[in-house]
Amino acid sequence: MSKNRIEAFSDGVLAIVITIMVLELRVPERAERLGDLRPLVPVFSSYVLSFVFLGIYWNNHHHLLHATQRASAAVMWANHHLLFWLSLVPFTTAWMGENHFAPVPLALYGFVLLMAAVAYTVLQRAVLRQHGEHSHLERSLGRDRKGRVSIALYLLAIPGAFVSPWLAGASYVAVALMWLVPDRRIERALEPRDGRGSGA
Amino acid sequence: MSKNRIEAFSDGVLAIVITIMVLELRVPERAERLGDLRPLVPVFSSYVLSFVFLGIYWNNHHHLLHATQRASAAVMWANHHLLFWLSLVPFTTAWMGENHFAPVPLALYGFVLLMAAVAYTVLQRAVLRQHGEHSHLERSLGRDRKGRVSIALYLLAIPGAFVSPWLAGASYVAVALMWLVPDRRIERALEPRDGRGSGA
Amino acid sequence: MSKNRIEAFSDGVLAIVITIMVLELRVPERAERLGDLRPLVPVFSSYVLSFVFLGIYWNNHHHLLHATQRASAAVMWANHHLLFWLSLVPFTTAWMGENHFAPVPLALYGFVLLMAAVAYTVLQRAVLRQHGEHSHLERSLGRDRKGRVSIALYLLAIPGAFVSPWLAGASYVAVALMWLVPDRRIERALEPRDGRGSGA
Amino acid sequence: MSKNRIEAFSDGVLAIVITIMVLELRVPERAERLGDLRPLVPVFSSYVLSFVFLGIYWNNHHHLLHATQRASAAVMWANHHLLFWLSLVPFTTAWMGENHFAPVPLALYGFVLLMAAVAYTVLQRAVLRQHGEHSHLERSLGRDRKGRVSIALYLLAIPGAFVSPWLAGASYVAVALMWLVPDRRIERALEPRDGRGSGA
Repeated sequence: MSKNRIEAFSDGVLAIVITIMVLELRVPERAERLGDLRPLVPVFSSYVLSFVFLGIYWNNHHHLLHATQRASAAVMWANHHLLFWLSLVPFTTAWMGENHFAPVPLALYGFVLLMAAVAYTVLQRAVLRQHGEHSHLERSLGRDRKGRVSIALYLLAIPGAFVSPWLAGASYVAVALMWLVPDRRIERALEPRDGRGSGA
Repeated sequence: MSKNRIEAFSDGVLAIVITIMVLELRVPERAERLGDLRPLVPVFSSYVLSFVFLGIYWNNHHHLLHATQRASAAVMWANHHLLFWLSLVPFTTAWMGENHFAPVPLALYGFVLLMAAVAYTVLQRAVLRQHGEHSHLERSLGRDRKGRVSIALYLLAIPGAFVSPWLAGASYVAVALMWLVPDRRIERALEPRDGRGSGA
Repeated sequence: MSKNRIEAFSDGVLAIVITIMVLELRVPERAERLGDLRPLVPVFSSYVLSFVFLGIYWNNHHHLLHATQRASAAVMWANHHLLFWLSLVPFTTAWMGENHFAPVPLALYGFVLLMAAVAYTVLQRAVLRQHGEHSHLERSLGRDRKGRVSIALYLLAIPGAFVSPWLAGASYVAVALMWLVPDRRIERALEPRDGRGSGA
Repeated sequence: MSKNRIEAFSDGVLAIVITIMVLELRVPERAERLGDLRPLVPVFSSYVLSFVFLGIYWNNHHHLLHATQRASAAVMWANHHLLFWLSLVPFTTAWMGENHFAPVPLALYGFVLLMAAVAYTVLQRAVLRQHGEHSHLERSLGRDRKGRVSIALYLLAIPGAFVSPWLAGASYVAVALMWLVPDRRIERALEPRDGRGSGA
């Protein structure tokens, strides 16, 4: 099977997921001052955070499928599974934003991100299994380490949301920054022993 | 005619259909506890079921068009016809979910799936007619058998919804599992006499 | 300039336009009988009609761009112009459906279709101008004749809507059937003198 | 990295952004006369303006990525950054339209366009940096001049909205026309000294 349509379909779903979130920024009626937008600030902040997360997923998905040529049935379903969790991001983003980062919505937001991270790991393994072990494997293992730190941070953030919303929020922002900032020192700090690069 | 744009257009429509369903998961206002999401459980379950069905259609569509090179006018209209029925899935999914699987919505959900299955069969025949008989024909005939079982289950489920919602629901889940689980024994059980493989 | 991205962007816009129309089929709340869907019948009929029109536009757009290789700035803007009018179809479809085919909404529906037909003619000329005269030119001129009949029918239907809704409705259905039915006799009847084929 | 998926993803996001704006044209209920659409006139005018702006961005994005082959991580994030600001256009368009071009919504509309223009400049530099200096560089520098005039007009329009809505509105229309009209005299007027062409 060719991988082109998996890329095209995933691009479509990710483009829609990233864009329909903005529909939650509902225009306040008969409100023409900047202060009238103040109630939208938490919804907008949630949108920015989720936009960054979906951008990261798109980049990683792009790299992962770039490294492969074909797509087995396992890869196709692992990809659908990832898209399923990402399709729930607009809902958890909106719920979190509209409740001003209350504990349960914050925890559910993290839970969906956690499941997406797990689904990405599963997809990565399905792609690797199809290719056998080779040079890309190592690069992806490096990436996996970054993925494991993300999963650990989500696992901290979900109960952490009930201790303090700031704890969960800071964890999500930390995960986003870890993937966003191309700072090699952060990567090296995470991989002190063998120094394997984790790619971009 | 090249088939590339049919694939691209179908990918676009399927990506949107699968994603706008999540818009039905309307965020409850001023509700910040997990229990506040309880009314969404049937809507969410319907979403999961329809996501799986649309994933199956995408996979099958991918395989079917992968086997062809060109697209006649008949293929283009057969494809539009399939997309039409699939475009109604978000509506029937939402109606079924919001009415907690009441008989009529359950039956209508099955009716739209039935029409989509018929439309897929028509598309399959249009693709085959354009190619003449050859090795792909057999593979597709095998697939057709799986398709016929699906149609039979829908025909059972639609009146069954008025006997018991569970009967219809179980039929839909059975169809989804039949396509989802890559269990060769199920395929063999469906094709006991000639043992032709039905492909993926 | 390559034409690939014009095709991809147009596919995206057409896929979204065709799909968001279904969002107008709003699920009636606390309504679980088939009769509860009766108010949706005009909205649904409008949806079917517009789905067919957008399918026709997609097919024709596919054929037109298939015949070209590059895209000038004029082609790009002629294409945006066509997409603009087609993007208004969901609005006029919904307005017509929700007002049970009242005269003004019926006429506005026709006006947007008329402008889309004019925009398609402009796009066709922009594509032809870029290529110079050759064999495709004739095929497209034949097509143009079909396009002119459509425009004439819209010009009849718009004032006709104020005489009788049926007159306008029948004109729209006639245009759709003219493009939909691959009946060569209809094409011949429209081109009695020179017998030039109008392509697909 | 291949640039194809960046193009496909951007096409998807731009197609959705341009299309969901039409969802703001909410169909008035139980309103079947042309006069009932009068309240939609400002929303519709805003839609037309934003449609033109997004069409311009699509064209420029098409040209910019056409000139490149690969995409670095910097290009990918610069592209996400541009898409982020463009994804806010439906919100500012709706807010401006629903408040009949009141000063603050008009200024915010210009602010988002300003940020998109800045993001486009950043993307342009990321593409150039990746390629080194060559003939495309000059063409793009010419383009940049046009981009700088746009940014200057936005910077005038944002405070200008508080003086007179017409001042801001005229500035936005002027920017759109500058990019839309393929009048070489305008370009020459902007580049009097060295006469470098600014491309299309």
